[in-house]
Amino acid sequence: MENIFDDNYFMKKALMEAEIAFDKGEIPVGAVIVIDNKVIARGHNLTEMLTDVTAHAEMQAITAASNFIGGKYLHNCTLYVTLEPCQMCAGALYWSQINTIVYGARDEERGCINLQTKLHPKTILKGGIMADESALLLKRFFIERRNLN
Amino acid sequence: MENIFDDNYFMKKALMEAEIAFDKGEIPVGAVIVIDNKVIARGHNLTEMLTDVTAHAEMQAITAASNFIGGKYLHNCTLYVTLEPCQMCAGALYWSQINTIVYGARDEERGCINLQTKLHPKTILKGGIMADESALLLKRFFIERRNLN
Repeated sequence: MENIFDDNYFMKKALMEAEIAFDKGEIPVGAVIVIDNKVIARGHNLTEMLTDVTAHAEMQAITAASNFIGGKYLHNCTLYVTLEPCQMCAGALYWSQINTIVYGARDEERGCINLQTKLHPKTILKGGIMADESALLLKRFFIERRNLN
Repeated sequence: MENIFDDNYFMKKALMEAEIAFDKGEIPVGAVIVIDNKVIARGHNLTEMLTDVTAHAEMQAITAASNFIGGKYLHNCTLYVTLEPCQMCAGALYWSQINTIVYGARDEERGCINLQTKLHPKTILKGGIMADESALLLKRFFIERRNLN
């Protein structure tokens, strides 16, 4: 039997979060945190609504996952996020000692790869899962916003 | 007349926050954010109490300052923090476009300088203000914790 709980399955959940952000007028980035094929935390970018630069999707998902687990380390967890994490989020993920980070679209300019943010040595980073869908949603957002202004 | 509102004056306020963290059994790091010689936000490390790796002193101070200002950018603000910011906090400060960061003690291993976290081009970083007092408080904390275990 085919395993339906693959990376695409959970990245779709992260994309649903990104769409919620889009509908709120926020830069559409979404994240979920998964343990044993179960979503234990969700988050989407809320920097405008909360007027807070720290309110990235990943940061909220990390806080929610820690709350669910009752501990601050996210060992055995996988984060799915539609956009490659920035320095802040990658720095938070470093502290969390998360097992795996799966991102969708690359962020060449502000992402943790080109800026060489240090991840925990135990953390696996992989990307490109539903990258086109994630990038398209961001592109749509910026086009619509440009047209509104 | 001597200006009492110098870096030492505000770093003492950050150290008071670090002492509050110490008394709560948290790694003693404290921060304040200042605008026009006025403290508009305070924060101290609460990662244990909140079981949340994102609850660093700086992160809470950034959120509180944005809330006070009613905007997410911390232009014209100075952060005083007793320990050199980590990647996460420096990454958050990047997004905040803060004017100045003043830290106390260096963090050679996990601080933003050696890990080369990118700050906003407009941000000034300076350190070594009451570095000995900040480092001593951290040292005392780890000695006492070792003796308890």
